[in-house]
Amino acid sequence: MWAQRELQLSGRSRGFHVVTGEIVDALPELGGLEVGLLHVFIRHTSASLTLNENASAAVLRDFRSWFDEAVPEEAPYWTHRDEGSDDMPAHVKSSLLGSSLFAPIAQGRLALGTWQGIYLCEHRDGAGPRTVMLTVWGEERQGG
Amino acid sequence: MWAQRELQLSGRSRGFHVVTGEIVDALPELGGLEVGLLHVFIRHTSASLTLNENASAAVLRDFRSWFDEAVPEEAPYWTHRDEGSDDMPAHVKSSLLGSSLFAPIAQGRLALGTWQGIYLCEHRDGAGPRTVMLTVWGEERQGG
Amino acid sequence: MWAQRELQLSGRSRGFHVVTGEIVDALPELGGLEVGLLHVFIRHTSASLTLNENASAAVLRDFRSWFDEAVPEEAPYWTHRDEGSDDMPAHVKSSLLGSSLFAPIAQGRLALGTWQGIYLCEHRDGAGPRTVMLTVWGEERQGG
Repeated sequence: MWAQRELQLSGRSRGFHVVTGEIVDALPELGGLEVGLLHVFIRHTSASLTLNENASAAVLRDFRSWFDEAVPEEAPYWTHRDEGSDDMPAHVKSSLLGSSLFAPIAQGRLALGTWQGIYLCEHRDGAGPRTVMLTVWGEERQGG
Repeated sequence: MWAQRELQLSGRSRGFHVVTGEIVDALPELGGLEVGLLHVFIRHTSASLTLNENASAAVLRDFRSWFDEAVPEEAPYWTHRDEGSDDMPAHVKSSLLGSSLFAPIAQGRLALGTWQGIYLCEHRDGAGPRTVMLTVWGEERQGG
Repeated sequence: MWAQRELQLSGRSRGFHVVTGEIVDALPELGGLEVGLLHVFIRHTSASLTLNENASAAVLRDFRSWFDEAVPEEAPYWTHRDEGSDDMPAHVKSSLLGSSLFAPIAQGRLALGTWQGIYLCEHRDGAGPRTVMLTVWGEERQGG
């Protein structure tokens, strides 16, 4: 069984945002899978996805701080500056975190750890909505 | 064909540890697949997975050194400090390396490169066992 | 439907190189899939894969600059030095970017964003060809 859906995530401020609920809500097919996988794919090069701690606003804030420090806007080595000083750092941050995120599916649910949530990592200031493509596939549940 | 198994990896010291053998040993189903994929998923937010060089203890040690230097414990920007000074760096390191790892399966075996091994990346001091979920799926081998 | 192919990418200079075309050309099976996924896997520990901006040579150059700055060759903490000063940084860069890359397949094509291209990330000087394993799987298109 395969299902594929495009989902628009509304524009967020620069930083890290938990979007697990939005993604699960967009996937009624999840409940029908005994075993399978979810692939979340972001179709952009200045925003990315990761799994991390889902309960603390301080963690989200500290993620932003570390990435802003590690990939600074005003570094002398940037040559791609046409699209603003946040653009090239956004590309690097995106690749560090990645455009694909996976979660196993077991008995009709995402088999995430207790503290794991899906982050939308927005690396631009003033970004618009972000498109993600959700793909689930696996073995269907029997009977019931 | 699908198979899914939960595996507990025993508690390790902070650092990088090759666990390829433990993972392969937990998957008797591997041998039955002509072509497919393995997904290893870690259900934690302060430990992660990667593939890298499997033959040198110095490489493992240098991995730890780089990550400790790049994501320092005593940085002024951390605000999430309740769970110890190694906690917030552990979250960032985990997302840099990721919670999902994949290897192609070909003719009943993991199609890794000669030097590739699966690392458990433990970012906490004094961590307990870590749970990984192994999912394999693909086309079964014929006959024989 | 499953297909798996090994592809040799010719040796490149150290840096970031767009290889989307070479990968798509090696996969005639793509056109036959209604919905599915592509997995690109690099069988090396000193080169890696990522998706990022496909239109600007400056972006590729700046990627190299950031990685060379963030994972410096002459750091005092490296102990694995036998294979040259670019070797250990190449291992770390490889794990930061990862050995696996995915793209969803929809209606016979890679469902990449407009600006997304597949990068071969070559972290060694004077590297030879790099082997990638391409796996595609999914539901076949009907009729036609």
